[in-house]
Parts: sequence; structure tokens; C-alpha cells
Amino acid sequence: MARRGLLLILSSPSGAGKSTLSKRLTAWDPSIRFSVSATTRAPRPGEVDGRDYYFRTRDEFIAAVEAGEMLEHAEVFGNFYGSPKAPVEKALEQGHDTLFDIDWQGGQQIRNSSLGRDVVSIFVLPPSIAELDRRLRSRAQDSEEVIATRMARSKDEISHWAEYDYVLVNRDLDLAEEQLKMILSAERLRRDRQPDLMDFVRGLNGEFETR
Amino acid sequence: MARRGLLLILSSPSGAGKSTLSKRLTAWDPSIRFSVSATTRAPRPGEVDGRDYYFRTRDEFIAAVEAGEMLEHAEVFGNFYGSPKAPVEKALEQGHDTLFDIDWQGGQQIRNSSLGRDVVSIFVLPPSIAELDRRLRSRAQDSEEVIATRMARSKDEISHWAEYDYVLVNRDLDLAEEQLKMILSAERLRRDRQPDLMDFVRGLNGEFETR
Repeated sequence: MARRGLLLILSSPSGAGKSTLSKRLTAWDPSIRFSVSATTRAPRPGEVDGRDYYFRTRDEFIAAVEAGEMLEHAEVFGNFYGSPKAPVEKALEQGHDTLFDIDWQGGQQIRNSSLGRDVVSIFVLPPSIAELDRRLRSRAQDSEEVIATRMARSKDEISHWAEYDYVLVNRDLDLAEEQLKMILSAERLRRDRQPDLMDFVRGLNGEFETR
Repeated sequence: MARRGLLLILSSPSGAGKSTLSKRLTAWDPSIRFSVSATTRAPRPGEVDGRDYYFRTRDEFIAAVEAGEMLEHAEVFGNFYGSPKAPVEKALEQGHDTLFDIDWQGGQQIRNSSLGRDVVSIFVLPPSIAELDRRLRSRAQDSEEVIATRMARSKDEISHWAEYDYVLVNRDLDLAEEQLKMILSAERLRRDRQPDLMDFVRGLNGEFETR
């Protein structure tokens, strides 16, 4: 049966496992489209344009926002981040879900956009700050200052947990992955995401009439 | 973490697999309380008072309704059916989910009661009317007239599918069971069903402060 795609927003402080969970979810169901963000920040080593981000100049980014081509956007530490609208609308029409790995600012904007009714939002909490700190430090390339700044931002991000539909505490990555899959699978069974059910029930009633 | 119990309402036409699914769900998670209905209809062979139904006289039933002891009640084919309120309130307080195997009339009443915000409702559709007919006929004890009446009631029941949060088409009992478990597991992860999250996040923020 055809299904209306949904917008799955996954937010968490950096280091709570959101990126790993995103990768596992799209590996589990390749029909899920990942929303690649546009950004004005410089690429990190290994990052590929169009896969990790769409790397854009400030002028390009601002022009896209002004043309209404961004579903949401925000400025973080002097850099712009945003979600291009066109791929999401295309995925929705085709019945594909789109996964957003974005922060609370992006989540708020999409929830309050015209696509708000298609949103399912999940916040991933770390089991403890000590564990978050450990995970942040395991990224060897970052300086103490960067880590401290990111911890401050984590606190800001966590303060928005109560705006989300679902909340997971990522104590165990495999368990959190299972919970994420369950939420998506269940949300797909919501009546209003199964537009073909009306035709199916009409068919059942047709069978009743002809008996 | 403590959790607020929910009211899981499972409705379907007779013969769509609802009773089997209910049994499998409570076998899977024995913490789920099954709401035993009260009824004024006569026991069928093998039915046990207090397990299958609370068998009551009309006078007893009407007295319970008038005393406000029924969460919902309805008259079907001249018999009263209803869900006693006390066990549900107790289960909610203890963080246990309660499963209701009831019809659309009961579902509407509970959704519109003071416990409405704790309701998750699921409608189970048969794959076809031919299959429903086959399943109804496999109950050898029923006469053709009873079967015909039950088919008419099935049509009435199906007409209310669009009032439910989730809809399953029971083509395969094992798949439907999995979907039912996923819905319940996901609903338990909803933010508003995890009252202890607030304390947990306060704890995280406390850890931030002391770093």
C-alpha cells in the first residue's frame, strides 16, 4: 500500500550517538532519505560535499534562504546550517521518509512549518554527562577549547528535550537502535499515514454488499 | 524509570484476530493488565466468571453504571457490556498498561473520558470479508443466523476504523503481533509517558554544574 512519507527529526547533544543511530537506521531501511544539510562552515578532513554537507558560501546560503529554498536554517558559532526543502518534498510525494539529523532550532522550525503534521521528533539523551564528555574527547582532532564549547552547546541542546514526541536515553547503542526502529515502524502504522486504507475499507464494504 | 500506564484499546470486527492478538500481547508482557469486561449475557461453554467476563444480572449492571463504576458501557443485541473503572485506575497508578478488547462504542467512550489522554487505540482489519466469513464459521457452535448477525455487526464495527490512532490489516497473525508490540513499545517511549525524564535531565544538568 502507498504511504505518505514522514519527517523523522533526530536531535541530541553532540556525542550522544545521534550520527551513529542515523547511519544504522538508513542502513536498516535504505528507502529512508537522509536530509543532507547545507552549511557555510569549512569541510572537516574526510567530509565530502553532497554526502556529509552541501558546502556553500555565505552569499549562496543567504540567497537560498531568501528564495524560500530552506525548510529551516540557523546560525551556530558564526556558521549557517540549513535543510534544503526540495529533496524533502520530493521524498514525501514518493512515500519515502526523510531523516533529519538536526538541532533543536531546526526541529522547532520544521515542526512549525507547513510540513509540521508529517513530523515525528525524537530526542536522544546521553546516559550521563561523564559519558558525553568521554565520547566528545574520543574525537582526537578537537582541542580542549572546542570540547568545552561543545559541552556548553550540549547543555543548551538538552534544555530543549521536552519539545520532542519521543525521548530515548542512549545507554546501549543496540537498544537505542531497536527503539528507534520501533518508533519509525509504529508511526508508519498510524491511520493518517496510510492513505490507501480508505480504498481498502471501501473494498471490504464492496465485498459485504455482494455477499 | 517509572512510567505512566496507558490504555491500549484494541477493536476489530469479530473474527479479525483481536482475541488471539490480545492473548499473545499479554503473554509477551505479563505486566500488561487485561481489562475483563462485565456483561449481562449468559456465559458460553467454557467461559469462567472473572476471567472471561464478570457475569452480572441486569440489575447489578445498571446499579454499577449508576454508581459511576463503569469506564464505558453499551448495549449490544439486548445485553449490556462494560469496563469496570477501578482496576484500570489502579493499574495506571502502578505504571501498568491496561489492554481493552472492546468495540467502537467502548472505544469512543474511553477516548472521551477523563482518561482519554492515556489512550492508544488500534483497529485490526481483516484481509478480506471472505476470510472474516471463514474465521466466523470455524466457530462450530454458532448457527447460520448468529453468523449472519455477527457479519452485520462486523460491517458496523469496520465503519468506525477511522476513529483509531493506528490501523493494522491482519493478513498474517505473526506480523500483526509484531506490529502490535512495536506500537506499544514505541508509545511507551513517548515523552509524556516517561514522567521520570524530568528528574533524569535535572540530574544531567546537575552534573554539568559540578564539572
